[in-house]
Order: sequence, then C-alpha cells, then structure tokens
Amino acid sequence: MKIAVDAMGGDNAPQTVVAGVERARDEFTDLEFILFGKENEIKKYLKNEDRIKIVHTDEEIVMNDEPVRAIRRKKNSSMVLAAKAVKEQQADAFFSCGNTGALLAAGLLIVGRIKGITRPGLLSTMPVLGQTDGAFNLLDSGANAENKPEHLHQYAILGKYYAQRVRGIENPRIGLLNNGTEPHKGSQVTQAAYHLLSADESLNFVGNVEANAILKGVADVVVADGFTGNAVLKAIEGAAGAMVHLLKETIMKSGVVGKLGALLLKSSLSGLKDKMDQSRYGGAVLLGVKAPVVKAHGASDSTAVYYTLRQIHKMLKEEMVPELVSYFAQQEEKKAAQKTEEKND
Amino acid sequence: MKIAVDAMGGDNAPQTVVAGVERARDEFTDLEFILFGKENEIKKYLKNEDRIKIVHTDEEIVMNDEPVRAIRRKKNSSMVLAAKAVKEQQADAFFSCGNTGALLAAGLLIVGRIKGITRPGLLSTMPVLGQTDGAFNLLDSGANAENKPEHLHQYAILGKYYAQRVRGIENPRIGLLNNGTEPHKGSQVTQAAYHLLSADESLNFVGNVEANAILKGVADVVVADGFTGNAVLKAIEGAAGAMVHLLKETIMKSGVVGKLGALLLKSSLSGLKDKMDQSRYGGAVLLGVKAPVVKAHGASDSTAVYYTLRQIHKMLKEEMVPELVSYFAQQEEKKAAQKTEEKND
Repeated sequence: MKIAVDAMGGDNAPQTVVAGVERARDEFTDLEFILFGKENEIKKYLKNEDRIKIVHTDEEIVMNDEPVRAIRRKKNSSMVLAAKAVKEQQADAFFSCGNTGALLAAGLLIVGRIKGITRPGLLSTMPVLGQTDGAFNLLDSGANAENKPEHLHQYAILGKYYAQRVRGIENPRIGLLNNGTEPHKGSQVTQAAYHLLSADESLNFVGNVEANAILKGVADVVVADGFTGNAVLKAIEGAAGAMVHLLKETIMKSGVVGKLGALLLKSSLSGLKDKMDQSRYGGAVLLGVKAPVVKAHGASDSTAVYYTLRQIHKMLKEEMVPELVSYFAQQEEKKAAQKTEEKND
Repeated sequence: MKIAVDAMGGDNAPQTVVAGVERARDEFTDLEFILFGKENEIKKYLKNEDRIKIVHTDEEIVMNDEPVRAIRRKKNSSMVLAAKAVKEQQADAFFSCGNTGALLAAGLLIVGRIKGITRPGLLSTMPVLGQTDGAFNLLDSGANAENKPEHLHQYAILGKYYAQRVRGIENPRIGLLNNGTEPHKGSQVTQAAYHLLSADESLNFVGNVEANAILKGVADVVVADGFTGNAVLKAIEGAAGAMVHLLKETIMKSGVVGKLGALLLKSSLSGLKDKMDQSRYGGAVLLGVKAPVVKAHGASDSTAVYYTLRQIHKMLKEEMVPELVSYFAQQEEKKAAQKTEEKND
C-alpha cells in the first residue's frame, strides 16, 4: 500500500511531514511512500529512505493560492503531482497538510468521484467530551457551500462506512443535524433528507440531532450540508479554543494563591487540552472520491502527521474505498433496472 | 412604560419571575408591570403590588405544546393574554421565560410584524471572550428555518438599531456569517446577501465573518439565516458547556494535590463561569415586530429575569421600535415612489 505525500504542504513542512512519515513507515511494514517536494529539503530531515521514494519538484501551492486555478496552473506542484500519482495508480492514497481548497479541488478534479456520487463531502472527526476516546464524525464539514437532500443521504452512507471500517463501530448511529429534534423540524433540505434517511433501512438512523447535543455523543455520524457543517465545526473549535484561552487568562489574573493552585493542577489541565486535540483522530477525509484523500491541519506536528497516516493505513487495509465503489455501483444498477422496468410497464 | 409579563413561563415560575420583576420595579421608577398567571401563586411571592397589576388566568402553555397550535387554542394562557395586552396597547413590551416557539408565534401572530419587515428574526447576545464586557449580537438565531438574502439585509438593519440603542455602539460593525472571508465565498444566499449589505451605505459592513472568529469580536452584529444562526449558537453553547463540564471532571480526577489546586483557584474559575453566562446581556429579542418581544432562558433565575427587564427598559426608553417602524415606513415609501417613477418612464 503506497501513500502519495505532498511533502511541502503545512506550516512546518517538510520537516514535520518527513518525521511523521518515518514514524508511520517504521510502525506499518506494509506501507510505502512517495514524497513530492524539494529533494534537498526533504533529504535534510530524512533519516533513511527505506520504502520512501522522493519525486523532486520545485513548484508549490501556497496557502493564499486560489484553489481551482492553482490546481489547473501549477501542474508541477507537489500537490498536483501527488494527486496525479493516485490517479495513475502509482499510489493508493493522497495526503497533504497544505491549502484545503486546493486539496479538495485536486481530489475532485484529479483523483475523481466514485461513480454514483454527486458531491463528495469532507468528513471531520470531533471528540465527544466526557467519554474516554469518544468521538463523532461530521460530514459534509465544508467541501460544499450548498447541498441537496440526496447528497445528505449519500453522506450518511459514506459516514457509515467510515465509522465501521476505520473506527470499528458495527452499526453506527446516524444523526441529521437540524434545528430541533422533532421529525417535522428544519429547512426544506433537512425535512426531505429526514425522509430519505428514515426510508433507508440499511442505516441506523437516530433522527434529528442539535448542534449542542452532538458533543455529548448522541450520534456516531452527524450528517449536514457543507455550509452548516462548516459553521458548526468552526463554532465548536472557536468556542473550545476561546475557553482554553479564557482559562489561561483567568489563571494569570488569579494572584499568587490562584497561581499556586494552577501549578498544582497543571498536569490535569494539560490533559484537558489533549482531550480537545482532534489530531489524534487523524485528518479530514474527502469521502466519495476514488481513493483516500486526506488533509491534516496546516499547523500539524509530526505526531499529527503520523496519526493521519495511521488513519489512511486503516482505510486502505479495510478496503473502505473499494467497498464504497461497489456499493454505489450496485445502487446505480438498481436505479437503471428500475428505469428499464418503468419503461416496460 | 408598561411590560406585559407571562408570569407562568420558565422552570421556576412564578417565583423567579416575580422576584426579578420586583427588583426591576424597585430600580426603574418609570416601569409598570402586568403579570399574567395564577393570582394565588403570584401573590405568594410578591412583596408589594406597587406598579404591578395581576391578571389572573389558570391556563398555561407548557414546554412540549406545539407552538402555533397552542397560541391558537389556548386563548386564555398567560402567554397569549400577555401578547394580546401588547397588541391592544395596554402594554408596551412582552416578556416570557416559557416555550420559545410559542413566544415566537405569539410575537408574529398576535403582536404582529412591522410594516415592511418580511421575516422577523431572533437576536441573541453572546460574550466576546478575552474582552471585558465584550459581546456581539447574532440574528437570526432561530426564528426562521430558511431565509432569503433580503431578510439578511433586514437583519443587518434591525441588529444595527439594537446595537446602537441598547448597547450604545455608535457605528456597529456588521458581519455576514459565511464559510470563508473572501467576498465570493458561500451559498447563493450569502453571496447575494453580501452584495446587498455592501451596497447599503447606511451600514458599517465589515464583510464575511467565520464562526470561529465571531467569539473574538470581529463584528458587533453577526447576520445569518435562522438555520445556520441557530446551529452556530447551539454549537457555541454546547462547546462552552462541555468545556466547563470537562474542567470539573478533570479536577475531580486530579487527586489530592490537584483538588487543593482547584480549591485555591476556585474564585477564579467561578469568574470563568460568569464570563460565559449570557443572561447578564438579557434575553433573546424577536426583532421586526411592533413591540419588544423578549424571551429569557427557561432556567432563568431572578437575576436573569431582572437583566432581561432592564434590557426591555432600555429598548423602550430609547424608542427603538418606533424608530424601526419609521425607518421601514420610509423604505416602503421609497420603493413605492420608485415603482411609480418606473411606471411613468
């Protein structure tokens, strides 16, 4: 199993990327890597080249590049070359810490959609607070600015496969993000999506879930349109970050006695920070394309890179994408058969 | 200035409502109240009846009543009677801690929309973390499940008047909640709203704002469709609540030394909780109706009730609603004049 790595994406690339790759390589003996980027820079940090191939390129997509244009014009960028390696089946998955928009564009335009999928969605993993290792998946968390009910139905299926294969949850609970829990609640899109999800017997649909409940673990997979999913993800990150900031500030202003207290609590408080650290769940996955396309945070350290590569390893080992391809091929066949039947009636 | 109070709404009604009303009455000598509810129960908690009139009714709208049906059928409920008192100009504003949906329905169906306003919106006030007394308004935070760009434009104007009159901000910064800061970002609705807001020279429009930035105070008024606004509000509340919960849990598990630390930090940590307490900003205001219609949290204590009545006092004193009525009347006249002109051309 071979992972194409954009070695130049991210704030501390290629150093952190290389260190994360070597750690994953040492742990998973069935993994191989192709690193795309500046050979000299990569080699500066690389301890040994076992199962690691370097493909040199000088071109890079930077954070403020306009995504689609960058993918079309910067043909020799590390990101485009890595995505192409997947398209041409020289690699099985694609990883980057770079420009999210460009990664989504590369996934859609170069790696390509699975047949039957109309709008691939971005899956994020968030911690469930108060549960050891509790987590939930949210998709679409921002690949699309607008979605139809049918897309949300596909996200439920994509999320279900992910939760089963990667997180090992046998029968994942699927929730629909909505502004109330009652079935009739919401916009036209969520109301129609509710009907599609209820009608699909292959899904363990638990109904509507609200944005304040998802952190409590009411569902394993939370389905949303990309606009709302993105807003909710950012709101949670913003609020959690602000709380940590406020806690620090509170302690700083708390005088000598308070500071002593904080010192005594120090190790516990750093546990709190770890709990909120999403990077141990891996990166955000563009689901619905022909191979795992995964984005880790731009500020990822080598541990976050390692966790994301471990997540990709799991997706490859469990053959998640081939299963999705076959599932949606079957759905397309069913639809075609239904059409023929209707014609013959 | 007279406030119609649904004395029976809320978890601890009428006790907390009565206590909050008496505190506001004692502080603001220009305020009078009509309390709707069970006379015996209200009198049990009322210290004196100065400037407080009680209108007895046995009927109540409860939390799991279907809002619109409840408003139509429970004609003698404390909520309907309070709203009717405003409609019939026996009172100038309407306050409740009860069923939010029913309050919105009562505001829309009984108090009624300001001429020219298509879809009244619910305005919430949230703290800006890291700024003393920093806050921002978010609207629509859930009165509507769907909105058009024109509604968002009206929310900007409604929010601007609120921020000016109640919060005393001379030229409030208006932000549009979106999934990126660039002007071209977002759904069809936000893209069109961006153009309307940019084109309105009476607004201090600061562009698109993201859900993780609003808590940092990038805008005084954040405009959103009701579905996204509601989801973001709940996500922030959920994340902040979960962080506080997690902090407590962390401390409980931290052993003797950690607990000692927590004890030393205790007063500082309760300051953190206060900071997140939104009730000191008052309740959620349904803007775009003919009088202040304000909802405080169901779990409000007497202090939260008092803060909300203080907020209503401010709206009345500053004549916010009459100003809105005259602004939107002018807009309607302009539109009519434009139409006549077009016809004559």
